[in-house]
Amino acid sequence: MKSAGINQLNRYCEDIRTEIFSTVSECGGHLSSNLGAVELTVALHRVFDFPRDKIVFDVGHQCYTHKLLSGRANRFHTLRKEGGISGFPKRSESEYDCYDTGHAGTAVSAALGLAKARDLSGENHAVIALVGDGSFNNGLIYEALNSLRILNSHILIILNDNGMSISPTVGGTHDILSEIKRENSFQADDIAVFERYGLQYSGVYDGNNLEIILPALENAKALLEKGSVLLHVSTQKGHGYSFCENAPDRTHGVSPETGVEKKEYSSALGEELLRLAEKHNKIVAVTAAMTDSLGLRDFFNKFPDRSFDLGICEEHASVLCASMAAGGLKPYYAVYSTFLQRSFDEIIHDICGQNLPVTLCIDRAGVTGADGETHQGVFDLSYLSFIPNLTIAIPKDIGEFRAMLRMSAEFDSPLAIRYPRAGNEGSVESIEIGTFDVLHSTSSDIIIFAAGERCISLAAKVRKKLSACGMDFTVVNARFLKPLDERYLSTVREMFVVTLEDNVVCGGLGDAINRFYLNSGKTIKNFGIKDCFIPHGEANTLSEEYGLSAVALEAYIRKCYARG
Amino acid sequence: MKSAGINQLNRYCEDIRTEIFSTVSECGGHLSSNLGAVELTVALHRVFDFPRDKIVFDVGHQCYTHKLLSGRANRFHTLRKEGGISGFPKRSESEYDCYDTGHAGTAVSAALGLAKARDLSGENHAVIALVGDGSFNNGLIYEALNSLRILNSHILIILNDNGMSISPTVGGTHDILSEIKRENSFQADDIAVFERYGLQYSGVYDGNNLEIILPALENAKALLEKGSVLLHVSTQKGHGYSFCENAPDRTHGVSPETGVEKKEYSSALGEELLRLAEKHNKIVAVTAAMTDSLGLRDFFNKFPDRSFDLGICEEHASVLCASMAAGGLKPYYAVYSTFLQRSFDEIIHDICGQNLPVTLCIDRAGVTGADGETHQGVFDLSYLSFIPNLTIAIPKDIGEFRAMLRMSAEFDSPLAIRYPRAGNEGSVESIEIGTFDVLHSTSSDIIIFAAGERCISLAAKVRKKLSACGMDFTVVNARFLKPLDERYLSTVREMFVVTLEDNVVCGGLGDAINRFYLNSGKTIKNFGIKDCFIPHGEANTLSEEYGLSAVALEAYIRKCYARG
Repeated sequence: MKSAGINQLNRYCEDIRTEIFSTVSECGGHLSSNLGAVELTVALHRVFDFPRDKIVFDVGHQCYTHKLLSGRANRFHTLRKEGGISGFPKRSESEYDCYDTGHAGTAVSAALGLAKARDLSGENHAVIALVGDGSFNNGLIYEALNSLRILNSHILIILNDNGMSISPTVGGTHDILSEIKRENSFQADDIAVFERYGLQYSGVYDGNNLEIILPALENAKALLEKGSVLLHVSTQKGHGYSFCENAPDRTHGVSPETGVEKKEYSSALGEELLRLAEKHNKIVAVTAAMTDSLGLRDFFNKFPDRSFDLGICEEHASVLCASMAAGGLKPYYAVYSTFLQRSFDEIIHDICGQNLPVTLCIDRAGVTGADGETHQGVFDLSYLSFIPNLTIAIPKDIGEFRAMLRMSAEFDSPLAIRYPRAGNEGSVESIEIGTFDVLHSTSSDIIIFAAGERCISLAAKVRKKLSACGMDFTVVNARFLKPLDERYLSTVREMFVVTLEDNVVCGGLGDAINRFYLNSGKTIKNFGIKDCFIPHGEANTLSEEYGLSAVALEAYIRKCYARG
Repeated sequence: MKSAGINQLNRYCEDIRTEIFSTVSECGGHLSSNLGAVELTVALHRVFDFPRDKIVFDVGHQCYTHKLLSGRANRFHTLRKEGGISGFPKRSESEYDCYDTGHAGTAVSAALGLAKARDLSGENHAVIALVGDGSFNNGLIYEALNSLRILNSHILIILNDNGMSISPTVGGTHDILSEIKRENSFQADDIAVFERYGLQYSGVYDGNNLEIILPALENAKALLEKGSVLLHVSTQKGHGYSFCENAPDRTHGVSPETGVEKKEYSSALGEELLRLAEKHNKIVAVTAAMTDSLGLRDFFNKFPDRSFDLGICEEHASVLCASMAAGGLKPYYAVYSTFLQRSFDEIIHDICGQNLPVTLCIDRAGVTGADGETHQGVFDLSYLSFIPNLTIAIPKDIGEFRAMLRMSAEFDSPLAIRYPRAGNEGSVESIEIGTFDVLHSTSSDIIIFAAGERCISLAAKVRKKLSACGMDFTVVNARFLKPLDERYLSTVREMFVVTLEDNVVCGGLGDAINRFYLNSGKTIKNFGIKDCFIPHGEANTLSEEYGLSAVALEAYIRKCYARG
């Protein structure tokens, strides 16, 4: 690597590109973003001295080449599989990964912290933040830039600008960057602002050309002696595979080949919201750079004036929804469970504090699987359940999700609907706020409260098994965590109560049911996700392993029968 | 107002200034920030047509003049008192308040949402965001600026630039703004970036001079026809009272005269951290624009290289702490409970996800009082308790707080210590992680688990009263919410268990104890803050009223005795 000539390095790039393509086709993962960053990453490994020098990958999904070049090539075929190589940087995986990422916008802050630690410890190595232009929309980046002069620790920020996040990058920052690129000198007025923040600016037109990127990195490395550097690199997302180059959005994330694909909740969201919006002209839809994966493309095409993709700006999205609601509109904010964490303060301070009719459509709830620790959706019930004025709904299937959306159109307070990626269609006519639904009633002394499709399937699976042995239990669809169906709960005569949720138990359904039945004399058991960070793997396997075990549930029911 | 001449308006300003000064001296509140914004707000009311036109106050602490000019002058003497005028904008209080604020950085997003609602509803009025330069450091502002072109709804952003937040404003953005001001033309390069975001820039040198600010606002109003406008106004914080002008930081927030002032936990933090830092050279301190109110001024003076005030950037502060810890340092992040909500995702994703030894010093926990809904610290136990790898400590007094800080120096994982503003000194030698402390032991069948000074005082107060009637109960200092002291809990023989916490019960100590004693046969009662947003008032009165009632606790204990 260090001694290879330019031709050799280009051959490395080809091999890496082939390896990434074949592995991602097999395991799924991030394709176009990694293909576009091959030359840049190879050049980084040539110019810098890892792991002595440190590099933080923003979001971290573009780290595949780095992994292949840091002793993990032989295990790369295990990408995103349980026990295998993570799709994101992991300090626990290699000393070449110095900081874990997964959510957008943290890299500049993280690089500054590592650089400050370096300086205070009297060490001397480079610290690099590799950031995509999509993340450059995120507020965290500006908070970090704002502190460059305060912290006064030199870092190299590489802005990997391919004009895309998952969807094309949007907004003023993108316009500024495009403008800079258009004026090929890379010397537009706008550069002045980066310089005021304390950055030495340097631009590169073709980040997929080693002969251009290598000297640019050498130059940036030299500039680091004087101060922090912003190296603005233009790359092509999906570079090297024409169909990726032509459809970088659809090849951003690739799923492995699976069997029968279930229906996605996101499609149902798109369909229902489209229908509702035709009737209710106050309905608007908001996303943070994930319009397609949240199912809203058709809505955006049909109602461009009522659709807003704000880029990776989850906080702004929540405040915008709150204020549009304060102005009389009916906003729907579609977002992944894990990314909604970024809106936590705004959900309290703006949406619920003013009791405004914003509907949060929380996708990818529960264990999500292959993306690992930073992408599991197992906290949302806990961080939402204690917020005053908020109603929390958990559909048992897509049909019920549709009914909840129809209900939401007339609902005049903050509402959160949380659901997994995929499920069964089912059919539910209408639904009343705060009501549970008894799915199966028995004369046994055991009752299970299950929240969401995965848990209801788990209950059904165990019931099927046990009914063969003449055992049975009542199954209730606990479709509202807040308000709880206290009217129904107070009628329950069963003495053995079981709760199931694909969320940590603390602060979720389990705690709520425990609280309701406090001093009731009932025997209660909570099944939910364990109190730990869940690594990457197959979602159902992980759920089983980390708390929602059919075996454990069956064993517990048998125990109840033995005692009852 | 509309017909008054310039001299008349200047007299209004003087009267308003006098009214603000006398009321704040009496009731406490925000002084210098409001004194500096008098002329600007008077001019806004002259030029615009409220409530038809809408104005959003960022943070909202500078809204006093607006309140005096919108039909609340006769009630202004009730400022910040329970049932009186709020110190922040409140939609529930007046139609002149169109959007509630309290936390920094939301105003531009909120104005955009209101403007978008206006446009989609075919209405036609001005929407104004009044933002201080302190808030201009906050990432949310940039997420909003980034979407100006996407949303394409015209708003007027007034940047009220007095060079201060509570402390002097810091960072690159401030440097840029100062640079713009220095070049009196207000036409520095940097303005280009605002224009790229889609803003028409206009600058005013003296925002405390009506003859300058009035035409500037008229001009900005006219520019709104063409697009959004950034009006950069230079004002003097504390204007009109020389001692406020000379000490704008110490007169930012003023407390009313009270009797014996308790010792503040923040002073103890400053003292202990200073001592620890002399021994441990890896210790660094981080704040987000609140160095003084968090007690860290001396630390910052003594260890300037190990102290970081990042401006109002709570997210960046958390990531910086996580990454400094990843680099081998020992960061302490001091922050108010309500503002830490902004760091929620970073606590999970960066600090706890990597199990890094960052200590969160969470001040103003529990009911804080006069600032109202947006400033109460009653959610932190709930939003922290379910996060894996996090240890949560709750000192019973300042002495125990000191002991926890000494312990933290050797502690190698994420730690949160939450405490109220003021309390008693007390004295605790040392402390072991995850242990409760029995403060009073009896042979009665009742045990109270109390978390934090306010709750332990409440228990003591009730015990004193009841002991006169020969009733007694055991009092345990539940000083760790996580890990719980399961060893002790499993030895408890009392059948009546009571929990006390100045936090909502959901997700807090109550739920944790309920979970531990599930199916134990014990009779449990949880006292905590009700599930609602708590308005402004006197902290102890509000606590009593919203869930921590001595009367209710006494009644419950008597009931236990009757039953026991």
